[in-house]
Amino acid sequence: MPNISNRALHMPPSPVRKLVPFALKAKQKGIKVYHLNIGQPDIETPETALNALKNIDLKVLEYALSEGNLDYRKALTEYYHSLGFNDLTTDNFIVTNGGSEALNFAISTLCDDGDEVIIPEPYYANYNGFTSTFNVNVVAVPSTIDTGFALPPIEEFEKKITEKTRAIVICNPGNPTGYLYTREELQKLAEIALKYDIVVISDEVYREYVYDGKQQISMLAFPELAENCIIIDSESKRYSMCGVRIGCMITRSKKIHDAAMLFAQARLSPVLLGQIAATAAHQDDQAYIRSVREEYTHRRNILVDLLNAIPGVICPKPKGAFYCVAELPVDDTEKFAQWLLEKYSNQNETIMVAPAGGFYSNPELGKKQVRIAYVLKEEDLKRSAAILKDALEQYKLEFSL
Amino acid sequence: MPNISNRALHMPPSPVRKLVPFALKAKQKGIKVYHLNIGQPDIETPETALNALKNIDLKVLEYALSEGNLDYRKALTEYYHSLGFNDLTTDNFIVTNGGSEALNFAISTLCDDGDEVIIPEPYYANYNGFTSTFNVNVVAVPSTIDTGFALPPIEEFEKKITEKTRAIVICNPGNPTGYLYTREELQKLAEIALKYDIVVISDEVYREYVYDGKQQISMLAFPELAENCIIIDSESKRYSMCGVRIGCMITRSKKIHDAAMLFAQARLSPVLLGQIAATAAHQDDQAYIRSVREEYTHRRNILVDLLNAIPGVICPKPKGAFYCVAELPVDDTEKFAQWLLEKYSNQNETIMVAPAGGFYSNPELGKKQVRIAYVLKEEDLKRSAAILKDALEQYKLEFSL
Repeated sequence: MPNISNRALHMPPSPVRKLVPFALKAKQKGIKVYHLNIGQPDIETPETALNALKNIDLKVLEYALSEGNLDYRKALTEYYHSLGFNDLTTDNFIVTNGGSEALNFAISTLCDDGDEVIIPEPYYANYNGFTSTFNVNVVAVPSTIDTGFALPPIEEFEKKITEKTRAIVICNPGNPTGYLYTREELQKLAEIALKYDIVVISDEVYREYVYDGKQQISMLAFPELAENCIIIDSESKRYSMCGVRIGCMITRSKKIHDAAMLFAQARLSPVLLGQIAATAAHQDDQAYIRSVREEYTHRRNILVDLLNAIPGVICPKPKGAFYCVAELPVDDTEKFAQWLLEKYSNQNETIMVAPAGGFYSNPELGKKQVRIAYVLKEEDLKRSAAILKDALEQYKLEFSL
Repeated sequence: MPNISNRALHMPPSPVRKLVPFALKAKQKGIKVYHLNIGQPDIETPETALNALKNIDLKVLEYALSEGNLDYRKALTEYYHSLGFNDLTTDNFIVTNGGSEALNFAISTLCDDGDEVIIPEPYYANYNGFTSTFNVNVVAVPSTIDTGFALPPIEEFEKKITEKTRAIVICNPGNPTGYLYTREELQKLAEIALKYDIVVISDEVYREYVYDGKQQISMLAFPELAENCIIIDSESKRYSMCGVRIGCMITRSKKIHDAAMLFAQARLSPVLLGQIAATAAHQDDQAYIRSVREEYTHRRNILVDLLNAIPGVICPKPKGAFYCVAELPVDDTEKFAQWLLEKYSNQNETIMVAPAGGFYSNPELGKKQVRIAYVLKEEDLKRSAAILKDALEQYKLEFSL
């Protein structure tokens, strides 16, 4: 049998991969599973986007330009102008098959084998996938639940910078933490990136969804980083259209842009149809995003309050995205999450959560934490919290914790 | 300024990249350019596929499963059953964002840095992109225009196999040559792959378009290769829907499948909309493909006859795909192709061709060859051939060849 590559053998599994068969079995037993484990919102895609697809009058679904079609890049440019970044032009964007491909391009453009990227943890687990693919090492800087997962002291980053460091990756607001970085935190990252001439890769796909009147500060707000910054963006969460696979990579650096274009040309074309849907969605006024933001705010408030009301559960209130990381009074959340699917049910219902170990480079740090996505509607979140409360009590009894 | 990765710096440019600015300038001067340089057919996408998009009644454009949605994998399975591969099930398929991503997965699943893949040349230039991305080296085995680009003697492959060889990549029928491998040729490849326990990656995206009553023989027809074969497929050319970005990777090897799934999971999801369009297209009977095949046969016959009628031009008649490689009576086709766009026009029209140097690991081998795609309609092909004939005469005069 032929060998599999080391890059495949060393790829860390997704935090919930082991749980998937148990979820399937639970469903086969007729148990309803509330999926708090994934970022697939039940929010409807904007009607303008769906209508754009219905009204396509193309005869041939042709390749798009490798960098993305001009119409869509114009829509993106206008959107970024509305955020205040008036210097951006259509040439600053490379349209990608989801934020995933943008991350892929960013890593492959900057990093060779054995190079390092620094990431505050817990971090989005697929960052492991994109780095492992290119034999790039993640050097993690732990943040803690006590500070609500604020940026660790900048000295902790500085200590980890070596000659192999190519980038610092942040997700703002954060998956899985929901943390929203302050201007001061970002300023410190900008300074250190410039000092060592490395790149900040800022994953801002949840930008629209920040709460309590706050506003996300893009890394683009630091023009001194022109040559040292890549933004990852996506329409998936903004317009609840995860399946269209349209994202983009933005940089003011012509050098980085031109290098990333080589990878874009090798794969010929990003998706045409998603660009049509997203272009239409951007024509919409802000009403859609405002109403979705209100909905998420509401869901977050309900869920986080209910979680914190459960004895032994600690959950910092996230300021953005639609995830929270909660500490549970259990020995091991991986074991607990499996037990929820395999052994437990409450009126024929249970919940699926993502054990947080997979969001840390050292899984021990997340052993008592889970990530919960508040992508379900109010009544489902309420029911899920009630199930969690009951399950924790039963689990405690069963394992005499 | 931060460094760019070596994998980006060493990425060979696309064969026509240097020409693109000249094509743009020609168009700005009001010159009509016939694009014989790219595989973007003008053939209409099946109406059933377009209608499926118009009739989407989803409220949320959700993520698809990482391996592809079941409906679409069922459609693929049925299609492969119709080709006679009745052992395949939905578990043999991983749906990808175009054949491009399938190639990416195949290379990353099998190869580490410094590993080698053997490819008969001339070969599809983007194979360089997918290998360079992973620091994998292409070891080329030259085929020649005298044999119509038949498979080189199998001993030539065997000579190049080292302990770093992971795969032999073929494209059947071939881009850029249009060559269709015989059962005997494929049998030899199968034997050698088994002998050295390496994988045959068979890119069969042009499978439908073979002519003169011949039929493509898939590498799947060699069941002894179960653990040693990956098929690359795509809907782009089959249904003239290059922009939907739907392809797939097929293997009977559970080991390869499971490893490739790690990369599929890291990027979350292939495109949803393209799967809907392609599922509908597969419902169609074979009438669409038959009529497109007739159209391509017709175009090929017209073009190749006209090319061979030009003094000094040699063009083997391709048996499949929609490309041919022609030898031209010029000193350097890269220079000639640029001259066509920059200096020449005939009644305000010119043609763009792909210099074949970029399809060889040693560009010298293709210095007098061009790839021509017969994706344009009859009258445009006739006009293009007339332009080429006239241009060759003028070029000869201008450079006293």
